[in-house]
Amino acid sequence: MSERRRICLVGVGLITGSLGLDLRAADDNWQVVGLGRDAARLQKAVEKGAIERYSTDPAEALREADVVVLGVPLGAVRSVLAEIHSALPEAAVITDVGSAKGCVLEDVEAVFGHRPACFVPGHPIAGIEHSGVEAAFAGLYAGRRVILTPDAQTSPQALALVRAMWEAAGAEVVEMSVAHHDHMLALTSHLPHLLAYGLVDMLARAPGHEEILRYAAGGFRDFTRIASSDPVMWRDICLGNRSALLDCLADYRRDLEQLTALIEAADGEALEQVFASAKRTRDAHLQWFEG
Amino acid sequence: MSERRRICLVGVGLITGSLGLDLRAADDNWQVVGLGRDAARLQKAVEKGAIERYSTDPAEALREADVVVLGVPLGAVRSVLAEIHSALPEAAVITDVGSAKGCVLEDVEAVFGHRPACFVPGHPIAGIEHSGVEAAFAGLYAGRRVILTPDAQTSPQALALVRAMWEAAGAEVVEMSVAHHDHMLALTSHLPHLLAYGLVDMLARAPGHEEILRYAAGGFRDFTRIASSDPVMWRDICLGNRSALLDCLADYRRDLEQLTALIEAADGEALEQVFASAKRTRDAHLQWFEG
Repeated sequence: MSERRRICLVGVGLITGSLGLDLRAADDNWQVVGLGRDAARLQKAVEKGAIERYSTDPAEALREADVVVLGVPLGAVRSVLAEIHSALPEAAVITDVGSAKGCVLEDVEAVFGHRPACFVPGHPIAGIEHSGVEAAFAGLYAGRRVILTPDAQTSPQALALVRAMWEAAGAEVVEMSVAHHDHMLALTSHLPHLLAYGLVDMLARAPGHEEILRYAAGGFRDFTRIASSDPVMWRDICLGNRSALLDCLADYRRDLEQLTALIEAADGEALEQVFASAKRTRDAHLQWFEG
Repeated sequence: MSERRRICLVGVGLITGSLGLDLRAADDNWQVVGLGRDAARLQKAVEKGAIERYSTDPAEALREADVVVLGVPLGAVRSVLAEIHSALPEAAVITDVGSAKGCVLEDVEAVFGHRPACFVPGHPIAGIEHSGVEAAFAGLYAGRRVILTPDAQTSPQALALVRAMWEAAGAEVVEMSVAHHDHMLALTSHLPHLLAYGLVDMLARAPGHEEILRYAAGGFRDFTRIASSDPVMWRDICLGNRSALLDCLADYRRDLEQLTALIEAADGEALEQVFASAKRTRDAHLQWFEG
């Protein structure tokens, strides 16, 4: 691409801030500006180099934007879209970074009254348990996958521009359906977060948990790392991807019932088979897991 | 201690091999020998420096041993004890490294016909998902906790010697009851292992799991790290600590039922409270978790 593109990050946090850092480091084709409510935080993003400048006024920040990247929590997508709707340039492509895609499309349709061709749902698979622009860093997307979930109504030009943006940031872009994305992420991300939160919450309510946690080892620390994630963000994801998550939860609870029965029956052979199959599968795919 | 002590490791793997390396590095007070079935593996332990010499003959390896450290899988404790029983020196102190203590005491009582005063149940909290003497390393116990579960019948001299051995290896020794140990470890270690194995096994049986695992991120990798642990070892632990584990499983399944109900009801406020309480508790105790 030789044409200069203006990107407007709506909400500058870990995910969008790192995108800004990567785009600005990539080449001069990308101008990155920020829109938000908190001028002090936006000023931090400028100092960090994630954005060139910012405004707290939608009309000013969005003026002449080629790509608008929604970087707000899933639960705020609808209200923020409604707020900026009238200030969106007609030719602008809109994308987002939400961890569930079906609910974002519902929000977009609610605000626009239809599914606009310029909207390209996106999800960079690059979460860490920290958040905020303070945690943003250049190189977050190097070798990471970004999933886009266009459909027949999506403009090919809009899709190409969003793809080019992520590729400029170093990411590998893949496309799939909304339903497939939401099911996969429920399994590999949303369900594990819920299970980890649930376990630590159970411990937190146990008498003597202060002492119990003193004997927790490295396995516990890693298993529960995702329970240190932002509670509001994960509340929104669990509700946003509610239907797929409930499907996975039902399957998992059924499996846990079966594992309980195996332990009650002291069926060592069957237990060992389950554990060995899990170990085999995990070890075989270890090289795929994003860092 | 100025007196020289002879330690016999029965089974030289990650846990006992690292103990041998640490004791031999500590000072000249500790002589460490190995007993096992596989001469080639024991030879590796000699080359690694974990033991000075070895024998595959119990009588030879156990001769003049001051401390006998059982380092065999939980499921093999009873048969190995029965095998070496007649070769145990009368004055020897016996200890073990099993992740559950009630079942080990049952095995000891079954073999000895009573609970011998010279037996000191032990559990170093220092598991990693690898196993075997190849993975052993000096310094594994530096700053780690070792739990001993003596009772009124335990010889104070035997307890003091086992404590001195672990302290010489750099560990911090704490004492508690068998029941308390088994309950705590079920919560912070055995249940998480079962949950992680269960999740990966569920994925392994899902159609298209090869593709699904390609989109698993760092959260999934860490959450499931313990599902790469040795299946036989964890089968034995789950069966060995069956009763405490079943109690924890029942509690966890009840909590998961409640979390499911919150998601079904789209009760964002209650979900956020659970997640926030979990994050608060984990973040507050992070400094305790062993490395």
